[in-house]
Amino acid sequence: MAETLKGNIVIGQSGGPTMVVNLSLVGAVKEALQHEQIQGIYGALCGLEGVLKEEFIDLRAQPAELLDAVADTPSTALGSVRLKIREEHLERIVLVFQAHNVRYFFYIGGNDSQLTCHQISQLAHEVGYEMRVVGIPKTVDNDLVEVDHCPGYGSAARFIATAVACIDRDNEALRPIQIVEAMGRDTGWLAAASLLARREPGDAPHLIYTPEAPFSEAKFLEDVKRVYDEYGRAVVVISEGLRDEQCKQISASTQVDAFGHVQLGGMHQYLVTITENAYPQIKVRSDRLGTLQRSFIYCRSKTDAEESYLVGQMAVRHACEGVNDYMVTLERTSMHPYKCETGLTPLVNVAEQTRHLPLHYVSPTLNDVEESFLDYVQPLVEGEERTLDSGLPRLARLKPVMIPKKLPHID
Amino acid sequence: MAETLKGNIVIGQSGGPTMVVNLSLVGAVKEALQHEQIQGIYGALCGLEGVLKEEFIDLRAQPAELLDAVADTPSTALGSVRLKIREEHLERIVLVFQAHNVRYFFYIGGNDSQLTCHQISQLAHEVGYEMRVVGIPKTVDNDLVEVDHCPGYGSAARFIATAVACIDRDNEALRPIQIVEAMGRDTGWLAAASLLARREPGDAPHLIYTPEAPFSEAKFLEDVKRVYDEYGRAVVVISEGLRDEQCKQISASTQVDAFGHVQLGGMHQYLVTITENAYPQIKVRSDRLGTLQRSFIYCRSKTDAEESYLVGQMAVRHACEGVNDYMVTLERTSMHPYKCETGLTPLVNVAEQTRHLPLHYVSPTLNDVEESFLDYVQPLVEGEERTLDSGLPRLARLKPVMIPKKLPHID
Repeated sequence: MAETLKGNIVIGQSGGPTMVVNLSLVGAVKEALQHEQIQGIYGALCGLEGVLKEEFIDLRAQPAELLDAVADTPSTALGSVRLKIREEHLERIVLVFQAHNVRYFFYIGGNDSQLTCHQISQLAHEVGYEMRVVGIPKTVDNDLVEVDHCPGYGSAARFIATAVACIDRDNEALRPIQIVEAMGRDTGWLAAASLLARREPGDAPHLIYTPEAPFSEAKFLEDVKRVYDEYGRAVVVISEGLRDEQCKQISASTQVDAFGHVQLGGMHQYLVTITENAYPQIKVRSDRLGTLQRSFIYCRSKTDAEESYLVGQMAVRHACEGVNDYMVTLERTSMHPYKCETGLTPLVNVAEQTRHLPLHYVSPTLNDVEESFLDYVQPLVEGEERTLDSGLPRLARLKPVMIPKKLPHID
Repeated sequence: MAETLKGNIVIGQSGGPTMVVNLSLVGAVKEALQHEQIQGIYGALCGLEGVLKEEFIDLRAQPAELLDAVADTPSTALGSVRLKIREEHLERIVLVFQAHNVRYFFYIGGNDSQLTCHQISQLAHEVGYEMRVVGIPKTVDNDLVEVDHCPGYGSAARFIATAVACIDRDNEALRPIQIVEAMGRDTGWLAAASLLARREPGDAPHLIYTPEAPFSEAKFLEDVKRVYDEYGRAVVVISEGLRDEQCKQISASTQVDAFGHVQLGGMHQYLVTITENAYPQIKVRSDRLGTLQRSFIYCRSKTDAEESYLVGQMAVRHACEGVNDYMVTLERTSMHPYKCETGLTPLVNVAEQTRHLPLHYVSPTLNDVEESFLDYVQPLVEGEERTLDSGLPRLARLKPVMIPKKLPHID
């Protein structure tokens, strides 16, 4: 046990929101309230942008019931940011932390955020300022290394599987070829989760394309036609990012028309166009699941909610014990029954790394996901009891009680 | 009370599916089971396409628990069709009904379907075949005349409001201009329902554009910028169909690029493009709510579910009493508390008519919906207790027990 380090803490949220990222925030706050060495509990508005501008909300000023309501609200209650951190940013961040006697920093985010955490921890050490930085994992994409799965993924996976199951029935009614685009620029974890919707023979998804499976336009058109001829309909799930046989992203470069104009509307629109051109007699439609994948709170997973709270809580607990420059992880300790515990990994192990869908989950035909993937994903999407007694979900916002600034303003 | 007409009944489902259209089916079937004059209970596969091909499923062969499970399943359990009915179709339909001693026909659909019902009823009368035809209203668009609202609308409205409330929080995190496209080629009922999400000052939707409000590109760009400057973000809800000041649909004709190519991706993509061009420094995103609006079962409305069952039930009850050539309606008999009863209207009154969002609900600024609309829509989206204890919704299909064909095959 390291010696007691007294001071204030800052918590921030970064990158794309999830349905459960406020549970990590509230888990961290509630744990912080238990530790005498922690004085002020500050929330950075819009992640590091708020640190740079000294925009801190007072998280001790939030009533307990409000914190619980915020935990149940999707997206980042503190706001978020996509900010490429530069050297001068880092210096300012450490300066702000010194000015506010911030001795603990917790950042909830993906691999870019974990890199930033590591850089902050390093710089604080270099300038001789004692502080502890612990990363809290978060991403719907499920692409962080060193974890079994990422908080945020299970709920998004549950939304996608539910959406595909519902779209399946609509498709069965009117029988077009229907292309459903899931998030995932680099990895197929989210598209793969749609496999959960296939519960009876003939159920969608009939085909699944991920960035891990080299994509061929000719093969795609053959696949779709075969499925359509067999079922009289087809539901095809794709990741928003797909790669060709040379592992090159199929993107704007191929999605241009004859005049060199970039095709708008993304991957699903591109596939609709080539399918319509190949089979003009068949109706082709598409759905892009969009922002709802990470915000549609009715699809929150119980497992995901509990674990998201836990990683926030454990980050603070470990930091109070002396941990610095680490990220909290999730480790599956048992498959049947599903058991998962938190662990720790050095931030440098996570920074800028991408964990792909393992190839043993990709079908040899490159157009589907193996059933063995269900063992992995099923426990992550467990439902929760939720009485939908009002027409709309109850959503909450933090009370905007601000901490006074201490430094001269910068732009 | 008309004399008892003994024979078989056919029920069919037509047009775009809804979350609750199987409740109308099951309501009709369960009522039919109570009437001795009704013998066979046949479901036409894919609406009138199934009648033309004599593809009838035996609805008496379905276990009661299965019917209940089907009622809870979105989309059309019998399949659906979009078929422009021609004269020779009508003759074949009446011939099939005669061959199968079908004395009752119930068609669940929108205004095209009600027209077809009327034509079938007329032709049967002309050829001296005694039968009763009753239409059952259904459409997410809420555009049927002679009803207070359409079965299917409340659940779609609830989905849209929920989706916009969730997207709002995501938008608040990353603060782009975000365009959300709801269904509604001709009417703004669905887009207008997003107003339910605006529960606190600053909540989305910040702007709502419907086909009933003449759309001006210049005005739109001004509106969006003003909102963005005020809130640092913007959530804009639009109907998929918008009309210009000459009441002309803004469609492919204006959505072409400089080389005359039709802009792909629909209205939201077109608005993203003009907004990005006008304000290149602001991030612009879009969500098209797509098929989920009519199929995402977790958003089913309790009111909508109950009323959808009721209209199916009442259609059969009225037909057994002698009603022919009518559609069942929903009439609101009290605003506070909300009360609604069924009624009847001649099919000719409904056929091919479109009920627009009344102009008193459209804000004079043409970019919003008046608060008075909430009185209308709120009771329609009431939630229901639904324990989401499994990861995915339970969905059911009818047992494929077919009725033998009686006529020579036609193509």
